[in-house]
Amino acid sequence: MVNETQHTCSASSSSRSDGGSSSGSESSKDNSRCSTPVLDADRHERLRDKMRRRQDAGDKWFSLEFFPPRTANAAVNLISRFDRMGAGGPLFIDVTWHPAGDPGSDKETSSMIIANTAVNYCGLETILHMTCCNQTKDDITGHLQKAKRLGLKNIMALRGDPAGEEWEEEVDGFNYAVDLVKHIRSEFDDYFDICVAGYPKGHPEAESYDADLRHLKEKFFAGADFIITQLFFRPETFLKFMKDCQAIGITCPIIPGIFPIQGYHSLRQLVKLSKLEVPQEIKDVIEPIKDNDAAIRNYGVELAVSMCRELLDSGMVHGLHFYTLNREVATTEVLKRLGIWKEDPRRPLPWAVSAHPKRRVEDVRPIFWASRPKSYIYRTQEWDDFPNGRWGNSSSPAFGELKDYYLFYLKSKSPREELLKMWGEELTCEESVFEVFTCYITGEPNRNGYKVTCMPWNDDPLATETNLLKDQLEKVNRRGILTINSQPNINGKPSTDPIVGWGPSGGYVFQKAYLEFFTSSEIVTALLKVLKKYELRVNYHIVNVKGQNITNAPDLQPNAVTWGIFPGREIIQPTVVDPVSFLSWKDEAFALWIEQWAKLYEEESPSRMIIQYIHDNYYLVNLVDNDFPLENCLWQVVEDTFELLN
Amino acid sequence: MVNETQHTCSASSSSRSDGGSSSGSESSKDNSRCSTPVLDADRHERLRDKMRRRQDAGDKWFSLEFFPPRTANAAVNLISRFDRMGAGGPLFIDVTWHPAGDPGSDKETSSMIIANTAVNYCGLETILHMTCCNQTKDDITGHLQKAKRLGLKNIMALRGDPAGEEWEEEVDGFNYAVDLVKHIRSEFDDYFDICVAGYPKGHPEAESYDADLRHLKEKFFAGADFIITQLFFRPETFLKFMKDCQAIGITCPIIPGIFPIQGYHSLRQLVKLSKLEVPQEIKDVIEPIKDNDAAIRNYGVELAVSMCRELLDSGMVHGLHFYTLNREVATTEVLKRLGIWKEDPRRPLPWAVSAHPKRRVEDVRPIFWASRPKSYIYRTQEWDDFPNGRWGNSSSPAFGELKDYYLFYLKSKSPREELLKMWGEELTCEESVFEVFTCYITGEPNRNGYKVTCMPWNDDPLATETNLLKDQLEKVNRRGILTINSQPNINGKPSTDPIVGWGPSGGYVFQKAYLEFFTSSEIVTALLKVLKKYELRVNYHIVNVKGQNITNAPDLQPNAVTWGIFPGREIIQPTVVDPVSFLSWKDEAFALWIEQWAKLYEEESPSRMIIQYIHDNYYLVNLVDNDFPLENCLWQVVEDTFELLN
Repeated sequence: MVNETQHTCSASSSSRSDGGSSSGSESSKDNSRCSTPVLDADRHERLRDKMRRRQDAGDKWFSLEFFPPRTANAAVNLISRFDRMGAGGPLFIDVTWHPAGDPGSDKETSSMIIANTAVNYCGLETILHMTCCNQTKDDITGHLQKAKRLGLKNIMALRGDPAGEEWEEEVDGFNYAVDLVKHIRSEFDDYFDICVAGYPKGHPEAESYDADLRHLKEKFFAGADFIITQLFFRPETFLKFMKDCQAIGITCPIIPGIFPIQGYHSLRQLVKLSKLEVPQEIKDVIEPIKDNDAAIRNYGVELAVSMCRELLDSGMVHGLHFYTLNREVATTEVLKRLGIWKEDPRRPLPWAVSAHPKRRVEDVRPIFWASRPKSYIYRTQEWDDFPNGRWGNSSSPAFGELKDYYLFYLKSKSPREELLKMWGEELTCEESVFEVFTCYITGEPNRNGYKVTCMPWNDDPLATETNLLKDQLEKVNRRGILTINSQPNINGKPSTDPIVGWGPSGGYVFQKAYLEFFTSSEIVTALLKVLKKYELRVNYHIVNVKGQNITNAPDLQPNAVTWGIFPGREIIQPTVVDPVSFLSWKDEAFALWIEQWAKLYEEESPSRMIIQYIHDNYYLVNLVDNDFPLENCLWQVVEDTFELLN
Repeated sequence: MVNETQHTCSASSSSRSDGGSSSGSESSKDNSRCSTPVLDADRHERLRDKMRRRQDAGDKWFSLEFFPPRTANAAVNLISRFDRMGAGGPLFIDVTWHPAGDPGSDKETSSMIIANTAVNYCGLETILHMTCCNQTKDDITGHLQKAKRLGLKNIMALRGDPAGEEWEEEVDGFNYAVDLVKHIRSEFDDYFDICVAGYPKGHPEAESYDADLRHLKEKFFAGADFIITQLFFRPETFLKFMKDCQAIGITCPIIPGIFPIQGYHSLRQLVKLSKLEVPQEIKDVIEPIKDNDAAIRNYGVELAVSMCRELLDSGMVHGLHFYTLNREVATTEVLKRLGIWKEDPRRPLPWAVSAHPKRRVEDVRPIFWASRPKSYIYRTQEWDDFPNGRWGNSSSPAFGELKDYYLFYLKSKSPREELLKMWGEELTCEESVFEVFTCYITGEPNRNGYKVTCMPWNDDPLATETNLLKDQLEKVNRRGILTINSQPNINGKPSTDPIVGWGPSGGYVFQKAYLEFFTSSEIVTALLKVLKKYELRVNYHIVNVKGQNITNAPDLQPNAVTWGIFPGREIIQPTVVDPVSFLSWKDEAFALWIEQWAKLYEEESPSRMIIQYIHDNYYLVNLVDNDFPLENCLWQVVEDTFELLN
């Protein structure tokens, strides 16, 4: 009887089966024992497996193509765009390879570094394009090794455009994309997922459509995992192509490349490059409105939506690949109208996970970097292992120095002029600094009428969760408790709570109240007297820029301040207050006063000297209220402190 | 100002200080990052450091000496005595070395194996005696290596008694205890804590009291960490000896050996062996009552108490070492009257920790072995690493086979005749088995008037915590849900709760409700139907002896069912329901039906066949209610199941 139930599985006591994951990768065995309750099995799967899982589940998905920017400022903007467009849930993004832009270099605008940033700092599954013509095997191998080292797992293998006008075969060189596919498989075995390009109308240089199909088949048999097509203008073009591919035995996923027309000139340029012909019915619409950008974009969106609908309705297409041209509006609009832009309010963990394979098991971080996750990732990039289950297990607690404030993924999104407007063209006293902090908390404009939407320690407006504490935060900032991080206590809210929830549904999340701030030594003196009353309840760490460190938690134990209990799982405790890491964080936190704020002003100017004074004399304080089931006592601690001072 | 506070410590951001532990051992660095909130720092300290810490804190402590038993049955009893006397909080126990008893062998009565059992299975800090005369260096090194391998960390280095009547020096051999001390230090560096013997009246073979003191000084300077003295009859004997030792530069702790007189014959024998003279005032009391054992023991207790008081009151003595003669009553009485027998109701973890250094970081175990911790320790003894922080991290999940039911530390404390009285001389049907389970739960006598105080899966009476569930357990056992393990759900009780609390004070403990039982396939069929209603809430694993396994938790994730939140700590989750381990446990759980119960009866007897039938046909079921903040639904699940069956 029992054996007839669906759940039955035979297992001997010593065997350990694979956990039922459909993943065939060698890492699936480790994963079967990793307890991190990521919402998306995605985090542990390779791209081709995710694609298959989504297809099997009948899910529709999309992906986004970007090209590397030309300038550092454009790179900052592109990264913000990755963050914003990443919110819609692309299955992956891809970054094109610009041979002219030194694509494998460490420049902040190189293809390699943009892809690295997308994976490591934005947590996006990413495909790096790579072209092979006019390059030696050693060059290519070097690029691939670097990509692997950076945590990139997917390559789009392309031939690239020949150097001269005419295409000439090189002896012993890479002449076709298939050579690159073979090379990747022979040198890197199954490490990379490989994507190749398909041409629904045939490659412009191919002898014929059929010959081109045969080339594609070669690429598939050489080891390509899936195909992304060149853009096309009519759905039937793609559907015929797909049937033709399947007919000759190409069984991997084929993803249509969608190009929402966004402007007259970009269309013309693309058509010229791709040697495609724009159908007459489209030309007829566009030519009359060619000077009306908005009209063209509206038409482009309309056209793309209708083509995508037809593709999806065919039942043959599960995913759509968008040529974004690094723009946001048109693609987002199309995706929203198709209903496949899905902002998932659920978070696997309270912080955004990185997509580097080394960080696959990472599930605990110090709370200090909560608003500077990219800096945290940067400063821990050399770690061999990432803490899993317990911060105390971390075997590599040495943080890299943060001297590279210029790095584009760490830079403020706002230019100097805007920062000055927010933080004050001229500071007159410490209180004018208090005011900046207060305006950031309240969202009210400052005395010059500008809203303070970021701070040196936080490049984004206040988090929803922090809003819960807004009134108290405002009160204390006004009086010189300059808060840079905080969280309320939570005693078992459902994991689906829209504000504080995270992790899979059916769980409960908890928090200890946390407050972190800069403040003067006078306030610290009073605070320490008050804290004596709270000795067993409140843990504190108080440190100045010189590293003088005052704490009542002398044994360097991390204190878990966020944790979750889930059905059928071990406990997850994703944020800790770690006394050791706090000393690395304080270097960064104090340096931000100077690097981001003081340096806005002339040397020797009063404004700069005020910031310098705070940097030199204030303390950085963190407080944890361990009694999470009771009302948060930290506000009382601060109030008692002010009372003592009066 | 701030720098004047007591807590101030300077620390650069990269340095990681030692956490303030007074331990000088090389392991202290790891410990500073181990998050296990053991109540006693003891677990991570070596004996000499514990001794110093207790002395510095002004604590009084005691230790207990035992000799290895002669028979396997006596060994079973001795281990029970270790467990009982361990509850009083000895700083350590020591086990004497019996050259005639093959002391270094694997026999269950050898000194080595008894000490091993005390450390690993009873969790007691243990000193193994070792004598060196008439042994080769290789023999001694072999013994020491074995001791180290077994997790023993302390050696009492003794000369031992010469083989013949007269003492002759051996060339190149070990002639004195000091040779052994030197050998241990030269071969094992600082690994072992070394204890040596002191003779308050001088060694009987020494040329003089002063010469003997000089020998002791040699042992101290050769590397002995502390001294335990031979017994003596007058406190002033010890106090003079101690002053004399200190006067010649012996600065280590000197612990008086206390011998509570327990009987006329044992006193005479000991006196003969130790060549001590009994003072006249004692003889005068004893001789007239020499045939009255109780009177002599009462006198002995009285005498010991008054001598110990005088020693402790002197301010020179912090610890007392008791020669127990493997007896319990007199020593326990003395300790209780002195007020240094301290049963600490607090538990560092919900289960008793082992004292093997390898297990120092262990803080999570599967719940299945909750009532068979010695079996769990035995089956995991070959593991190189023990899970810490997270069960999923465990790198060695392979359990040793349990074929050695005969091992004395795994055997039932009750002899066959008693087991038959409890579990039935004759079973007539499955229901008579239900009745045994029910009587065990209720504590009521069975139909023959015997109380069932143990079961094959549990050698002790019902745990206090399980008592919370008594009524429900009784009801379900009567109907054939044969429970062997359970715990109630707990939603944040103080860690000091006398029943379910554990860990340091100021914390909160939590549990998910758990129920584990054997039951028939008919009941399982109904249960599975009922469980569909509880699909998202209840995790189940159901397995029969052949390993047919039914579960709704297919990804082999461990489920944390006991956890605690403490001030300034990471989360501790000491018990999990681990699907992989469950399959190892089921082998053991099913085998216990046969090994412990069926084999009480004749082959082919109806009683034996009933147990065999249950073994062959029943399922082992475990259920976890994940919704710990709500009322435990597992009883409803069982009730629904019975309802469905009716």
